[in-house]
Amino acid sequence: MKEVYLDNNATNRLDDNAYELMLPFFKDMYGNPNSLHIWGTETHPALREAMDKIYEGLGANELDDIVMTSCATESINWVMKSVYFDRIANSDRNEVIVTSVEHPAIASSARFLKNLGVKLIELPVNDEGLSTPADLRAAISDKTALVSVMWANNETGMIFDVKEMADIAHEYGALFHTDATQAVGKIKVNFHESGADLASFSAHKFHGPKGIGGLFIKKGVELSPLFHGGEHMAGRRSGTLNVPFIVAMAEALKVANSMLDFENSHIRRLRDKLEDAILQIPDVTVVGDRSRRVPNTILASVKGVEGEAMLWDLNKNGIAASTGSACASEDLESNPIMEAIGAENDLAHTALRLSLSRFNTEEEIDYTIEQVAKAANRLRSISSTYAYNPNNR
Amino acid sequence: MKEVYLDNNATNRLDDNAYELMLPFFKDMYGNPNSLHIWGTETHPALREAMDKIYEGLGANELDDIVMTSCATESINWVMKSVYFDRIANSDRNEVIVTSVEHPAIASSARFLKNLGVKLIELPVNDEGLSTPADLRAAISDKTALVSVMWANNETGMIFDVKEMADIAHEYGALFHTDATQAVGKIKVNFHESGADLASFSAHKFHGPKGIGGLFIKKGVELSPLFHGGEHMAGRRSGTLNVPFIVAMAEALKVANSMLDFENSHIRRLRDKLEDAILQIPDVTVVGDRSRRVPNTILASVKGVEGEAMLWDLNKNGIAASTGSACASEDLESNPIMEAIGAENDLAHTALRLSLSRFNTEEEIDYTIEQVAKAANRLRSISSTYAYNPNNR
Repeated sequence: MKEVYLDNNATNRLDDNAYELMLPFFKDMYGNPNSLHIWGTETHPALREAMDKIYEGLGANELDDIVMTSCATESINWVMKSVYFDRIANSDRNEVIVTSVEHPAIASSARFLKNLGVKLIELPVNDEGLSTPADLRAAISDKTALVSVMWANNETGMIFDVKEMADIAHEYGALFHTDATQAVGKIKVNFHESGADLASFSAHKFHGPKGIGGLFIKKGVELSPLFHGGEHMAGRRSGTLNVPFIVAMAEALKVANSMLDFENSHIRRLRDKLEDAILQIPDVTVVGDRSRRVPNTILASVKGVEGEAMLWDLNKNGIAASTGSACASEDLESNPIMEAIGAENDLAHTALRLSLSRFNTEEEIDYTIEQVAKAANRLRSISSTYAYNPNNR
Repeated sequence: MKEVYLDNNATNRLDDNAYELMLPFFKDMYGNPNSLHIWGTETHPALREAMDKIYEGLGANELDDIVMTSCATESINWVMKSVYFDRIANSDRNEVIVTSVEHPAIASSARFLKNLGVKLIELPVNDEGLSTPADLRAAISDKTALVSVMWANNETGMIFDVKEMADIAHEYGALFHTDATQAVGKIKVNFHESGADLASFSAHKFHGPKGIGGLFIKKGVELSPLFHGGEHMAGRRSGTLNVPFIVAMAEALKVANSMLDFENSHIRRLRDKLEDAILQIPDVTVVGDRSRRVPNTILASVKGVEGEAMLWDLNKNGIAASTGSACASEDLESNPIMEAIGAENDLAHTALRLSLSRFNTEEEIDYTIEQVAKAANRLRSISSTYAYNPNNR
């Protein structure tokens, strides 16, 4: 059976170069970089090279900080909780603004703050799943402590206007954070010029390992640590450095950035081919203008077909897809993006996310086109909601 | 040149079996375990087996939780901050009790709570670096929200009476946490029977990878997440699972536990041999009764010899040691344990920690004995504090 992995927004395979570079740090150069002996210091050149690649790859200036964390979820919780301690508790700023389509790491940590008494404002989205600068302007006030807007949405791939929204946040004296997890490695990012004070990312979305990520902290921005302890990372994030994964993440980022042209041509073309073919199936819609999406993502709605049923059929035929964020995909819930853009209730259960990577081939896409059409037909033929609706054909 | 790694309490090399077992999860079985397709589900048997090994290896019951984290520093900060949110803020319990010789992860997160208004009580230690149940009884009250006592000290290796101190904490309705980082893999632990409500550990202290650890949460104990998000780990800790490292940690734990007899005989004998030889050098002391220490650790004081100078000499001869915790060892600070046990100021700068592992050989120890004596002689011959004191010889 063919195997076609189209769930790259959930996680993806480690890059070959990254894999090779990290291996020596498990059993040979295994010292703690903070140690004052050769086992510690022999890791320094590789760490320095890795940090150089990361600063270069993310567009950070020398005086900005990029702090290694265990994943974007850590980075995000760090921002949310330390902003609470630093800027909300015992202050007259009491508002946090997020979009209504953020990843669960933002949505859920924001709800935690709400339970602590923070006024949480969720920006609405339009039918493309985007919150606009105008939405932010309508919501923000001089009570706003933090604005958090994702760079690219994990489910639709739609790209938000981070720069303009950061500028609005700053007009009101608020900090601006962006969850850049789905942007890094898919489009060119420059954190320093993005306007963001803080930006989160995770390696395993750009063919780095799972369990490593980071937080960009712009020069001069203060933020209490989430991990207090041994004063690693200049006191910003304690915990013994995961040297192999830092090395691997840096290399994966370098490779991903070196292939952005390929992403924008080859992967985009395959994505568009797949999307055009799916749209030929009656009553299928795709969320958002493809020119304003990252090049690899499709969020489709196949009317009358439960997303999970579609996944099941595709999986039986060797194709990996998702109904949206993998994080909660073991539950049979409606897709929150579909709900946020105001899809009718039956459509919210029909989400199918296909997310490509540079490892996908034309042949795989042709096979997927065939299988999605077959699955849609089969599932509609047994669907009570679709089959009985005379307007469907 | 010989190479002798005696800094195993800082970090150590990955176990061979653990290394082999984790490799397939980087580029082949790379799915997100939460995904509803074969790439996700094919990771489940290995994860289940890993969790079984971890529960078995740490002595957790089926209804206890062991939540994977990125390291003990994360686990510890989770405990400290969530206890603050859950049990201190908006409550009449306002005290946290820790020993004065905890790892910086506890000491520094406790100071963070103190700055938020928590009453922080640091238990004194005796000349062996131990706080006793009597010390705790003298300090605790019905205002105490949390007691945190390390299982084994990272610098001295001394083992604390966790069970009795947990019982005292419970008498007063306080939660009890133990930082078990330096105990796991060195002595037999049974978290369920330890009396602890919460216990932290890190894989890289028992030949697992750096960047993975866990928090034991006893059945029925509630604790707000530190990482809110995609509801991984039954909602207790969000973030995509680091499958390869979970698999590796579990295997490393299994191997370490299977070698506890070896640790207690062979490693203990090598440690004792090294310690006896060092004690033959004039004006050398070692902290704590060796029978009540983990089998691999020596914290010595070599009068008149700066710890960093000793490290430098040893490192030049291929031997890795430390002046105490690696976490802050790039600074020339006095050893905090030495200070806590009331060593005179000049002694607090003379700490030398030697920590063995199962990879050390008799030949390595013989070589180290020689080199420590040589270094002590050489450094004392150029030491102003030692050479000019007529009482030294």
